[in-house]
Parts: sequence; structure tokens; C-alpha cells
Amino acid sequence: MKLEKELIETYLLPLAQNDAAALGFQDDAALFQPEPGTELVISKDLLLEGVHFLSCDTPENIGFKALAVNVSDMNAKAACPRGFFLGLAFPKAPDPSWMEGFCASLSVLSKAFYCPLLGGDITHSKSGLAISVTIFGTVEAGKMVKRSTANVGDRIFVSGTLGDAALGLKLMQDSNLQQRWQLDHEETKYLIHRYCHPIPRGGFNPLIKEHASAAIDVSDGLISDLENLCRASNKSADVQLNQVPLSSALEKAIKVEPALFAHALGWGDDYEIMATIPADQAAAFKQECMLNGVPVTEIGTITAGTQPPQYFNEKGEKQQMLASTFEHF
Amino acid sequence: MKLEKELIETYLLPLAQNDAAALGFQDDAALFQPEPGTELVISKDLLLEGVHFLSCDTPENIGFKALAVNVSDMNAKAACPRGFFLGLAFPKAPDPSWMEGFCASLSVLSKAFYCPLLGGDITHSKSGLAISVTIFGTVEAGKMVKRSTANVGDRIFVSGTLGDAALGLKLMQDSNLQQRWQLDHEETKYLIHRYCHPIPRGGFNPLIKEHASAAIDVSDGLISDLENLCRASNKSADVQLNQVPLSSALEKAIKVEPALFAHALGWGDDYEIMATIPADQAAAFKQECMLNGVPVTEIGTITAGTQPPQYFNEKGEKQQMLASTFEHF
Repeated sequence: MKLEKELIETYLLPLAQNDAAALGFQDDAALFQPEPGTELVISKDLLLEGVHFLSCDTPENIGFKALAVNVSDMNAKAACPRGFFLGLAFPKAPDPSWMEGFCASLSVLSKAFYCPLLGGDITHSKSGLAISVTIFGTVEAGKMVKRSTANVGDRIFVSGTLGDAALGLKLMQDSNLQQRWQLDHEETKYLIHRYCHPIPRGGFNPLIKEHASAAIDVSDGLISDLENLCRASNKSADVQLNQVPLSSALEKAIKVEPALFAHALGWGDDYEIMATIPADQAAAFKQECMLNGVPVTEIGTITAGTQPPQYFNEKGEKQQMLASTFEHF
Repeated sequence: MKLEKELIETYLLPLAQNDAAALGFQDDAALFQPEPGTELVISKDLLLEGVHFLSCDTPENIGFKALAVNVSDMNAKAACPRGFFLGLAFPKAPDPSWMEGFCASLSVLSKAFYCPLLGGDITHSKSGLAISVTIFGTVEAGKMVKRSTANVGDRIFVSGTLGDAALGLKLMQDSNLQQRWQLDHEETKYLIHRYCHPIPRGGFNPLIKEHASAAIDVSDGLISDLENLCRASNKSADVQLNQVPLSSALEKAIKVEPALFAHALGWGDDYEIMATIPADQAAAFKQECMLNGVPVTEIGTITAGTQPPQYFNEKGEKQQMLASTFEHF
């Protein structure tokens, strides 16, 4: 108990940013007063050593990613993150330097999105580190952007570039790949950073809320998540593969090894946002995103039917695209 | 992914009880509309195999306890549980019979307290089972009962009986103890059941909300949790040990082995509620509890000062009482 209290007071309490809802971690629970007319949007992730991160990952990367992937869920729903709860299970008492690194990167994101730590617990694990994050946000009643409400004819937009993290992970796992893919040091660093430090899209929520008929965060990859959105909406989609936004580093690697293209779109860990926009608002949406510094690209259209989304190359030929995401069992 | 979807649809979706907030588990997040004038009370627990439960524990016991300890937190705050989020990490695909048992007992509690499952995730663990539960409830604004608001002269009440679970755990771990403590089969079963199936106090919340100046759930044992409440309130307490409510099974074992008394109060896992009641409301509180079928017992008084609570025997002699709760590291 003593060590747990010490860890909480030294490292975690500052993450509460003195938010009243945390009650100074002095009670059994946190207490949050939602503004009248708002709804709560709540999401949860469980991250385990050896599965979602490696024991050799830096505490900074682990801490950053644990919160980032949850903030990304809020962004995809046009919800404003309001606080998070953190469960940590350690196999042994963590080094102060580990805690410092973990909390420092958490703190950066937590402050950037004003998403204070409101509670949680620290406990013992018989094996690896386990991290559980529950995030909650608020949105004006009725304004949450769902997955299930895309309409035929809506244009499909994605933020940023896709597939970088898939290659970043591979580059981390095999140091020979940099040379094989003819990437320079900066490009390699960029791709790895995209895997380790997925920066949730800021400033995007008002635009999504105003224009999007549906949205999802691209965490399992374009192929999987577009299929998820279409299935929830009872629709299908046509996607132009040559319009999918790629970073210059990724394009360079694909030139050397074309099969990487399919892998990059099938893998995931992008944490970009995919949104469907009614055709008559597409131009306005695009322009407002530009003015707000959020790069978005139109990649296709929602269609009728319940078949999986269809992918076409620049010649208009249908291409089979498969999700390569991790099968957990 | 396929198995995860199957597990979610077969076993977890029914736990949502068709609650609209769950969105049929079809979205990135849950969506909850709090009633105007309510506040949210949120609590979180992370439970790990080998630490919080044993691999030989039945899935029914594990499922029941995971939710029960969280509902108990809501009860201690006079909050009405409104939903929970569940993260499950399995070392291998769980047997259908395991999932059925786990979900069946979860379902009993979830229905009893109308606390639907609103979301969560299923993932892989490299080692033991990990369970993460986040619960949230609502309470009229300003009405949450805190730990930190006890006043000098308030009477200390506890619900039910204390210490049963401490002996129940010992009886589970060593089958010789039943004979040594001269317990019959029913008494043994009762004590073990108190450990495995802590039933959160129902019907108590309105009484706590109306009368209590402060409250806490007794999860770490009387000694620890009274100290926690007193520390948060900047107060001390006097407790009459002979007034602490004990079950007849526990009394019987203590007669054989008097040291069990201190162990029982120091251990925890009671999941009863401790509340401080202003002296002039103590009689009314007691009577209302009786009329509502909630057994409560007055065990002491909040005093001035910041020393740890003091314990007295029936002769008025001070007794040293120590928490024997688990040190996680």
C-alpha cells in the first residue's frame, strides 16, 4: 500500500492537473459534472506487454500511445476528451526513471488535449505490465458522429497519411529493412515515430461534427475500418487506391517493394480519422479542413449494397485488398 | 478478430441488456445521456490472475466479484450504478464453458443493479487473465457522499458483518482449518461465500445520501478504511471493538483462535459500507435502515485530531489494531 500511495502521489497526482473531478485521488471514485445538454462518450482499451507493446519499448512511447489511441477514439466521435482513468499492473515495483518517462509523455498529451487523469489504480501483476485506459468525453446531445450513419453517395475522407505505422513497426523489428527499402535516416525515423507516437488529430472535431455523416478512427487499418464502418451503416464503398494519401517515405519504400502498399493499408495503427461527408458538403469540408491545418484526402464514395468495399487501381481495375491485422488468438 | 467478434456477440452483447448507451457495441465508444442536474461518479479496478484471483477460482466467482467490488464503490458514494466497461485479456481463447460461467454471474449482478455492460474490449495476454472494469454511476449534483467530510461527534456505522471474507479466503486455501476452527459445513460455506460472492449492499443508497456526512466501502478492512476516511476528513475516531458486528460463524472461530479477530478486521474484502452519521440523526438512520432491511451497527465516534483511530475493548482499554492487508510490492 505504501509504495502504491507513493507512486500515486509522486507520479500520477500531477497528471490530474488539479482538476476538481479527480477529488485529489482522495476518494473511492471521481466526480464529474457534465454540462447540461451534453452526452458522454466513453471508450476503453486494455494494453498488455508482449502484445500491444514490447518490454523494450521506452516508457515514453508506452505512456504516449496508451492515451493517444483513446483520444483518437474521442476525436473520431467528435467528442471533446474530458478525462481518463488509468489502471497499471506492474510485475515488480517500477523504477523511478520508468515512471518518470511514462508519466512525462502522458502528461504532454493530457495537457495538449486537456484530458486530466481522474482516477484509477496501481496493482501487482504476476507477469508483464498491464495498462488499462478508460477515457470519457462530452459532446452536445445528439451530435456524436457514429459509424452506422453513412449514406449512399457520401464521399469518404481520411486525415493525414495512412500506412506509415505499419512500416514503422517493421523497421523497429528489423534494422536491415532501412537499407533494403532505401530509406534515409530521417525517413526511417519518421515512420518509426508514426508507430510509436501516434498524435491524435487536434482541431478536427468541430469539422467532423458539422459535416460528417459517419466517422471511425483508423486503428485496424483502412481495409478493416472501412469495412467496419460500411457494415455498421449497411452500405458498401468504392475506393480509388491511387487517391489514398501516402507519406513520401512510404511511397519510396513501396517503389522498392510494391507489396508493401497492401500491407500498409491492411495493417493499422494509423490513428487517423476516416469520415463520410455528404457530396454537397465535400468541397466546403475540404476547404475548412485546409483552413484549420488538417490535411484530408477524398478516397472514395459510399455505395449501396452490403458487399465488402471495393478497391480500384488507376486503370479502374478491381483489386483485392485484405486486412492483415493481427489475429489475437 | 473473428474470435473476438464471436465472443463479444455471443457472450458480452446480452450483458448490454439492450441499453441504448451501448450502441449495440457497433461503434468506437458508448454514448450516455446523463439526466440534467446529475453528476457522474466513476471508478476503476484492474484484476489479475494470481494476484486478485486464482486460476482455480471458478469463472462464476471471478465474474461476480469483478463487478461486485465496483458496484460497492458506487454504493459507498450513494451513486446509482448506470453502466460498466469491461476489458478482458486472455492468454488463450477461453472455453465456451468459462465464458458462460463468467458472464452468467456477471449478468445476475448487472441485472440486479441495472448496470448494463456498455463497452470494452477483448484482447490477448501473454500470461494470465487480466480483467479491467470501469463503472460509472449518477447522483444528484452535490449529493455524492465523500470520504473527506466526516465531522467530530459523528457516529460511525457499518453495514452487515465484518471479517467474514478474511476467514473465507483462509478456509479456501487450507482445508484443515474448518476442523481446527470447529466450524460446521454450513458455516464454512457461508464464510467462503462471503469471500467469493460479495453482494453489494442494495437499497442503502437513499439512506446514505440522506444521512451520511461521509462514507467509504470497506474493501481493505475496517482498520485501513477507517484510517483512510479519517485521514481524508482530517479527523480521528474512537471505536468500541466489542460493538463491531461479527457473524456467528466468525465468532465461533474466534472463540477457538482469538487472534483471528484482529486478522478479520485487518484483512478486508468485506465490501460493506462504513458511514459517518451526525449524532442527532443516528437514531433515525438506524431505524430507517431497519425498515429497509439493511443491517447496520454503530461502532464508534469521529473525534478531533489527526492520530490514527483508537480501538477500545469492553473494559475501556486501548488495543493496538494493525491492518494486515496485502502489500502489493
